[in-house]
Order: sequence, then structure tokens, then C-alpha cells
Amino acid sequence: MTAPASYSEPPAPVFLFDLDGTLIDSVYQHVIAWHAALSRLDIDLSVWRIHRRIGMSGGLFVSALIRETGVTLSEADVAMLQQAHAQGYLAQAGSVRALPGAAQLLAALTGHGVRWAIATSSYRATSGHALSLLGLPEDTPMITRDLVRHAKPDPDLFLAAAALLEVDPRHAYVVGDSVWDLLAARRAGAIGIGLLSGGYGREELERAGAYRVYADPADLLTRADELGVRDLT
Amino acid sequence: MTAPASYSEPPAPVFLFDLDGTLIDSVYQHVIAWHAALSRLDIDLSVWRIHRRIGMSGGLFVSALIRETGVTLSEADVAMLQQAHAQGYLAQAGSVRALPGAAQLLAALTGHGVRWAIATSSYRATSGHALSLLGLPEDTPMITRDLVRHAKPDPDLFLAAAALLEVDPRHAYVVGDSVWDLLAARRAGAIGIGLLSGGYGREELERAGAYRVYADPADLLTRADELGVRDLT
Repeated sequence: MTAPASYSEPPAPVFLFDLDGTLIDSVYQHVIAWHAALSRLDIDLSVWRIHRRIGMSGGLFVSALIRETGVTLSEADVAMLQQAHAQGYLAQAGSVRALPGAAQLLAALTGHGVRWAIATSSYRATSGHALSLLGLPEDTPMITRDLVRHAKPDPDLFLAAAALLEVDPRHAYVVGDSVWDLLAARRAGAIGIGLLSGGYGREELERAGAYRVYADPADLLTRADELGVRDLT
Repeated sequence: MTAPASYSEPPAPVFLFDLDGTLIDSVYQHVIAWHAALSRLDIDLSVWRIHRRIGMSGGLFVSALIRETGVTLSEADVAMLQQAHAQGYLAQAGSVRALPGAAQLLAALTGHGVRWAIATSSYRATSGHALSLLGLPEDTPMITRDLVRHAKPDPDLFLAAAALLEVDPRHAYVVGDSVWDLLAARRAGAIGIGLLSGGYGREELERAGAYRVYADPADLLTRADELGVRDLT
């Protein structure tokens, strides 16, 4: 009988989940809240352009806004925008639902000893309600904007989430719905997985580096064997 | 001197425009209105799935809905849904704007003798307000759902619009934001042009057959020379 090959076995991969558009169906509410906030400053940015910025850091969002509209924003304007967006979003939070399969996917991972965390560009104040939507306890591993220097597409959120799980990021799958998640995943050295549930198209997510693209968490749960996770369902 | 070649010269091409997401920034309001209408029947369809159906016929929308959710809808349910959607959309119509460059593009085409018409899957009752948003008269050439047997992705709307302009559809550019527009354009034998302003990605529109993809009407106006339209700006 041949002796087993000698090598250091890699740790089991972990999952780092984006939140909006990935676990909860909140992208369009964020879009509408930004559209309403911008109209307070008489900024008429086309709605699809706002949609494309959801999930990126607020600072980059405002920089892109200034470039695309040519407006000049004072610090007070920016603060007002961020506050109006947060208020507008929270006012609609009652219509936000968990995405199909999200709670089941997280429960199945936990049940099979596969560790995971949430990493979101949102502040704790706007993302906290997601935990109850998903039936998760308050102490769920979650990295929010409040805890890192830069949001996506900088890799900080995923680096912090991997550190929280004490895993090297190259042993992590990053699951997200936007190109910002996938760029941040690459910069963190992790493997990106795309979901269509935030409204981006499959081709766009693939071009941004997604190894696989699923419709939503339910679809990922059904096909987790493609990621090397065995017997999840 | 060589004699000119002998052939029958083709007519100047015309432009057939989709409305929602192509000339006016109304897609997300339609999405929200459908989401609210569906929730009246306790149907929680993820918002991105609704977005992907905007611009297709209401009948096909409902068929897809039944397949994806497994619900059974009575004729009364379907009538209620359509009515609730129309009411919900019209209630938000005040936040709908013309897309950047839309009015200017139509005026430039008219000014240069390039003929055009609008062809929309919406009924006149929900699309009529677009004419004033675009600064157009009531007698603007427009084919609405009321006037044809089938809406997109059937080709009827574009065939009717080409007939209105007395042009063979193969001498028409169809400009739209959704894959339904581009499929209907192919079935009509016209050349499809995609706009990103309805929220679809460039790759998806190209794969559906768009010869060119522009950001919005303003971008098309600037680069109309790529379509063989000379000196538009």
C-alpha cells in the first residue's frame, strides 16, 4: 500500500456574506431612499446610476455623484444626504424581506460546522434590523461600516470578517450581489461568488470575477456541492 | 469618369423608441408598484425578479409569476393585480423624470428630418403622462398596448410603429432598455440598440442582440454617427 502524500491540509473554507441584495431583499429600498435624498438637493441622478452604486462606500458614492452630475457638495450637504438616506431607508424597512433560502442557507452551514460571517458596507444602525429578518441572534458574526477604515470595494470588511473567524482570506468564499463585493473579494484574496438577487446581470458578475453565479441564497444552497461543500441539503 | 453603380437606394432609417427606461426614468416606479400589488395577494416575489419582467406583456408577466411562485391566480386576481399596479404607478408618477437627453434627442431627430415613433408595452392610461414629461404634443406617433394584439417580446408593437411611419421594419432602429425590446426588434426584423438606463447590464443587452449599447438618450445623441446618422449634434 502506498503511503499518503505529505502536505499541510488547508482549513475548511468559510463563507463571508454581503447583506443587502445577498441575504435580504433591500437593494431597491436603498435605491429609492437615495433618489429621494438626492432630490432634496435638486439632484436628478437617473435611478439606474444610483442602483449601480449600492453596496459601495458612501464616500465613493458621493465622489462618483460629483463627477457624474457636476454638482459641488459641502460637507453639510454630504452629511444631510447620508442622514436622509438612512431615514428614508429605515422608513421603508417594513417592506424588506429575507431573500429566499437565506435563513435556511445560514442554518445549514451552521448545522454542518461550516463557519460564516456577514460583512456589509452599511452602518450598524441601518443593517441591524436584518438580523431579526433572518432569525439570527444579536451576537451573529457581523462586520459593519462602523468597524473598518474603508468600505467596499476596499477589502477591509472582508479582511476583518476573515480575521473574526481566524481564517486566512484565501480560504474564504465571498458571496455578494454587486461588482463592488467581487472587487473587494479579489483584493482580499478570497474567492468571489455572485448572486443575481441584487439586480446585476450574470455576465457582469462573471466579468467582475465571480467563480459561480447563483440566482439567490436558495439556489446556492441547492448547488453548494459546486463549491466543495458536501451534503448541505 | 465612371458611371454611378445602379441599385435601388434604401430609405433613410427611422427610430422606434421604447418608453419606460428608454425615454423616461420610470422603471423603478413600475417595479415598486408591482411589488406592492403582489404583496396584496401575499405574493413575496424578490424585487429583482420583478425588475427583469418590466417591459414585457402583462400576460407573460403573470405566466412567469405563476411558474416562479407556484401560486394560482384567478381572472379576478389578475385583473386586481393589473389595476393595483396601474394605480400604484400613477400615484408615483410625480417622481418620474425624462431621461437625460431624451427630449433633445427626439428634437434633434425631428430637426434633421429623421422620423421616429414610440412603441410601448404600457397602456395609454399609464404612458400618456410621458408626452408632457418629454414636451411632446398629444399627436406624437405612439403605439401603445391598447392598439396591438400582443405586447413585447412579440414584434407587434414595432411592426405597428413601422407601419405608422410607412417604413419596412428592416429600415428601423429599435431603441430599448430591456432584453424584451431587443427580442421584439429581432422578430420584427429591425436593428436593436440598447440603453443602460433601465438597469440592465451592457453584456446582457449585447447578448440579446443589441448592435450598440449607450448609457442613455444623451449618450446616443452624442454618438449617433455610429448609427450612420450624420450631423445630429
